[in-house]
Amino acid sequence: MTRIGIIGGTGYTGSELARILCMHPDVEIAAMTSRQNAGVRVADVHPFLSGYVDLQFTERISDTKDLDLVFVATPHGVAMNEVPALLNQGIKVIDLSGDYRMHDVGVYEKWYGHTHTDTENLQKAVYGLPEFFRDEILGADLVANPGCYATSIILACAPLLKSGLVEDEVIVDAKSGTSGAGMVPSARTHHSTCGESIIPYSVGTHRHTPEVEMAVDRFAGSHMKVTFVPQLIPIVRGILSSCYFNLKEEVNQEDIDEIYRNQYGGERFVHYVKEPSIRAVVGSNHAQVASRLMGDKVVAFGVVDNLVKGAAGQAVQCMNLMLNLKETAGLDVPGLGV
Amino acid sequence: MTRIGIIGGTGYTGSELARILCMHPDVEIAAMTSRQNAGVRVADVHPFLSGYVDLQFTERISDTKDLDLVFVATPHGVAMNEVPALLNQGIKVIDLSGDYRMHDVGVYEKWYGHTHTDTENLQKAVYGLPEFFRDEILGADLVANPGCYATSIILACAPLLKSGLVEDEVIVDAKSGTSGAGMVPSARTHHSTCGESIIPYSVGTHRHTPEVEMAVDRFAGSHMKVTFVPQLIPIVRGILSSCYFNLKEEVNQEDIDEIYRNQYGGERFVHYVKEPSIRAVVGSNHAQVASRLMGDKVVAFGVVDNLVKGAAGQAVQCMNLMLNLKETAGLDVPGLGV
Amino acid sequence: MTRIGIIGGTGYTGSELARILCMHPDVEIAAMTSRQNAGVRVADVHPFLSGYVDLQFTERISDTKDLDLVFVATPHGVAMNEVPALLNQGIKVIDLSGDYRMHDVGVYEKWYGHTHTDTENLQKAVYGLPEFFRDEILGADLVANPGCYATSIILACAPLLKSGLVEDEVIVDAKSGTSGAGMVPSARTHHSTCGESIIPYSVGTHRHTPEVEMAVDRFAGSHMKVTFVPQLIPIVRGILSSCYFNLKEEVNQEDIDEIYRNQYGGERFVHYVKEPSIRAVVGSNHAQVASRLMGDKVVAFGVVDNLVKGAAGQAVQCMNLMLNLKETAGLDVPGLGV
Amino acid sequence: MTRIGIIGGTGYTGSELARILCMHPDVEIAAMTSRQNAGVRVADVHPFLSGYVDLQFTERISDTKDLDLVFVATPHGVAMNEVPALLNQGIKVIDLSGDYRMHDVGVYEKWYGHTHTDTENLQKAVYGLPEFFRDEILGADLVANPGCYATSIILACAPLLKSGLVEDEVIVDAKSGTSGAGMVPSARTHHSTCGESIIPYSVGTHRHTPEVEMAVDRFAGSHMKVTFVPQLIPIVRGILSSCYFNLKEEVNQEDIDEIYRNQYGGERFVHYVKEPSIRAVVGSNHAQVASRLMGDKVVAFGVVDNLVKGAAGQAVQCMNLMLNLKETAGLDVPGLGV
Repeated sequence: MTRIGIIGGTGYTGSELARILCMHPDVEIAAMTSRQNAGVRVADVHPFLSGYVDLQFTERISDTKDLDLVFVATPHGVAMNEVPALLNQGIKVIDLSGDYRMHDVGVYEKWYGHTHTDTENLQKAVYGLPEFFRDEILGADLVANPGCYATSIILACAPLLKSGLVEDEVIVDAKSGTSGAGMVPSARTHHSTCGESIIPYSVGTHRHTPEVEMAVDRFAGSHMKVTFVPQLIPIVRGILSSCYFNLKEEVNQEDIDEIYRNQYGGERFVHYVKEPSIRAVVGSNHAQVASRLMGDKVVAFGVVDNLVKGAAGQAVQCMNLMLNLKETAGLDVPGLGV
Repeated sequence: MTRIGIIGGTGYTGSELARILCMHPDVEIAAMTSRQNAGVRVADVHPFLSGYVDLQFTERISDTKDLDLVFVATPHGVAMNEVPALLNQGIKVIDLSGDYRMHDVGVYEKWYGHTHTDTENLQKAVYGLPEFFRDEILGADLVANPGCYATSIILACAPLLKSGLVEDEVIVDAKSGTSGAGMVPSARTHHSTCGESIIPYSVGTHRHTPEVEMAVDRFAGSHMKVTFVPQLIPIVRGILSSCYFNLKEEVNQEDIDEIYRNQYGGERFVHYVKEPSIRAVVGSNHAQVASRLMGDKVVAFGVVDNLVKGAAGQAVQCMNLMLNLKETAGLDVPGLGV
Repeated sequence: MTRIGIIGGTGYTGSELARILCMHPDVEIAAMTSRQNAGVRVADVHPFLSGYVDLQFTERISDTKDLDLVFVATPHGVAMNEVPALLNQGIKVIDLSGDYRMHDVGVYEKWYGHTHTDTENLQKAVYGLPEFFRDEILGADLVANPGCYATSIILACAPLLKSGLVEDEVIVDAKSGTSGAGMVPSARTHHSTCGESIIPYSVGTHRHTPEVEMAVDRFAGSHMKVTFVPQLIPIVRGILSSCYFNLKEEVNQEDIDEIYRNQYGGERFVHYVKEPSIRAVVGSNHAQVASRLMGDKVVAFGVVDNLVKGAAGQAVQCMNLMLNLKETAGLDVPGLGV
Repeated sequence: MTRIGIIGGTGYTGSELARILCMHPDVEIAAMTSRQNAGVRVADVHPFLSGYVDLQFTERISDTKDLDLVFVATPHGVAMNEVPALLNQGIKVIDLSGDYRMHDVGVYEKWYGHTHTDTENLQKAVYGLPEFFRDEILGADLVANPGCYATSIILACAPLLKSGLVEDEVIVDAKSGTSGAGMVPSARTHHSTCGESIIPYSVGTHRHTPEVEMAVDRFAGSHMKVTFVPQLIPIVRGILSSCYFNLKEEVNQEDIDEIYRNQYGGERFVHYVKEPSIRAVVGSNHAQVASRLMGDKVVAFGVVDNLVKGAAGQAVQCMNLMLNLKETAGLDVPGLGV
């Protein structure tokens, strides 16, 4: 059995990793760390894992020997302190925070407001979106797992960007369920505030902005202007990103459909559909993408479960590639549907 | 007391009109019609009106004498059969359906799929958005009350359109609570379908599209391209419309703020705010508008309670103008806030 | 104009008091205190009150002169420090916390875990449920406003208790929206925790238990065993309490209906209905009560908006009585219905 | 591979069966019937099953040969017409409707309002609750799968009933998510009606009442009075049943805990916990049970995902037993947790 560690096992991403990995046929969770819960049984903190994860939280990942791969599921700014030592010991790493997503240190430091202390590994990190960077991930020691917003946006936009049919700007109106904000209570995620509302937030200042910009540029092959407006909606799991493009030339719906089908026809987890549905993907690593011609514009929709394809599921998909396991292992279940 | 009639008292718009009018100091509800509930007490169908509306539903509005003004709160295609007779009797009319919103018969017939049988009055109908057409409403006999989406969009966009600062297209990503879909159960508004989701619908085909286009053109003074994508969100009351513009020239946030403050500074019901909130307007005729510079674009947000400022409340505001009552009478209450 | 003060204007109860009082024809809000927001405009903290409350928060209520009545809307343990001075100045007081609800100091100290420092006034406080204690409230200087759970439970149970038809125990299975928990974020009211769940909490330890017990005993005229289980449901406003009794003798549904109709037939705000509905009362001071025979048991349902009839609205109803105003002044609006 | 058929594949229970069975290692779905969708691909009706179920709906189950076991997931009154022929062909059957749950024909006909046409097999049907009737299910040809409410209630109550510690009556205050009402839109499950409410319904008339009574009597070994009040809550999946008992004698919490631990200590899917959580079981076949002493009463809570342990998951658990497969096959995944 391949031995896996999780740094940051208290939060939603950490427990979601455990939920997925405990169903995985080829790996075992050997360690989960938690500063606040060190010494406590994982199943006491996360009762839904009772019978599936028989471990105590440890203080440090170095307390556990012979790990093959470690997931880092901590707030930004923490992973960069953990990653160098892990890589030096020959342990592969998947970071689910924002620490290794942007190769440009200056951009990182501007948006996150602190110094990056591991610029060396930053250059080596592979962006963990398997549908587009499968080959790089296969050989990677360090993967930066995409953010939930970025995943939904890139899946929706990349085929159009690569097609060369669209102009150099995109408007992204994104809507996220509250679990995307993590487990720490706040005024915005207080039920009485958000439970019967939809709340635009961090307009122009959201930290996923540079990640989206970087990815979008990469697919377009040139600089794109990105306008990103995130909004909180009163659901627990799920993201819908609505992405608006101007077409450079006249195309019809069939042309658009073909571009997406060519891109995703062979993918297990990304589905090009007519009407995207959050319930169809909730609880699973599946994503749905739709794209609709509207005059001289196209609106592309991307839908994921923010905790699975938008975080832990995608990370496990990357893990499978890095460890030469079947890419879908532990992940091949449908969404809840209802 | 001014005597008011409501045609179509069973649905959400009809009962919301009754809820507002029963608090109005200067008018009395003299008649409410309902085909399916004729002969039944209004408070038996709408128990929340018990103690406030002491009437039975009647079959036809003509069963009631001496009405001064009638609201028509029926599905589209019905009002046009009722309005001519009412106007002929000297009764003022406010139609809350789509029947009299577009002066161009061809556009109506294309989007609604049936012939318009009252083209004469169609030309005379005044668009009932008091903040922009107050003078026309004052003297009108027939007012076409704006749709809920259109109200939220126009309030957000009109100041920018009038300013001449924006290019000739707007992308409107709109999100509505389920009460906007009316009281008839459907697959989309079934709780298990929509209760934990956000659902784009009628993309490119929604019937509020031509209304928005007509209004937007009017404020811009030239033809605007409108891209309108409505989405259903799991709240009961409330709309948030996010509207994206390209700027023609460089401006700063202060310039934008001033444009909006000049427009709405004297309005009782429209508030230019930093962070729009649905809960702040729910249950009230208030609207919130915000507008944020994002590089060479602006995103303008419009928030209303779809049943009040987006329907019945705005209709009562128009009624007050048409009857020379205080414009805020019966409406001057804050939103629920929480 | 009668001059009103509110101690504790930041929280949900304080802002709800302001929302109601600003629609009141006979009083003016002369002061609102807030420790954390002293010096800030009320409408900046509560934007939905913009245009309705033109005040700054003050630090202490004693900063304002010539108050006629003060509402205390603070957490328990605070009111007892404020009330003596207010009463000494001849200012009437309505306390919305738990400090003055129980005449038995020992019971208070056991459940709240601290000493009661104003036992003198505790004995004089009148329990502010107008439908049952109208006469006492009329002459009161100090009113202890009932809790939201207690209001819903007493309205449902009192007629049966008074009838002598039921045995000496009641099971109360109560469900509350999240605004009942106040504005301070917590793990339980975090949307991702409670937004798609129903959560029993404080089973056997909830602080409203002794208040319910006291009230129930009073109506029964003897000691009742109360089993109270509160549960959090994912709505913002509203409580449904389901109360189960054993009948002492055989009765039929008509007998039960008559008991309730006799009790509430003349009340403006309490409605005996067949099928209780939270939406029918939301946003209003109305309550709905239903009572159904089930074999040798009766289930009685009580429904209120926890912030209105369950808190601020009921307090204003008491204020009207204490100040010899019309009991319904400022409160006579229907619920939202939809 | 064992070949499985599903009669009634359009509804929520049918699609949930397919969702679970497509993850099952030992069986294949050979047929799904649907009257309204015959000839249509299953994945076109249920897009979340795309890539997992590669079948067309057929009109009749007899169109498919060599089935080993058939699930009947139709409204009540339909199964009794299908079951005799299936059993005659040697096909095992699990009925998820109410048709075979009650052995007393008179009780069935009273509550369901029509004649039972297969009274012979009715007597042979085994009640499919594995935690209590495992041995009978092992040898059964026909299993009546418990209802969702009944499952949550029995799991909570049976240990107490069997203990002999409780008196002969139980009050069940049950709360269900909307998916329990099925996929057909209705006024009650319309989002604007139920989305911000909790709605008691079918008080005293719900068809699960006799099923609960029958089961409760069986465990008690004598006649119990059951008071059952179902309530609709605004979540999609999940049931919480709160069950109140009088104790015959004085016990302490430890005694109660021991009773439950003895009952469920060896069960994979039923967990005795301190604080039950719907999110902990959603999407899974797990149930949580809690039981709390409150004076001379006990409140027992039962929590399930109504579509899994309350329907399709439990049916698959029975199937595993009937086919001599591992009882947990296809089902051994944790709940979503968040």
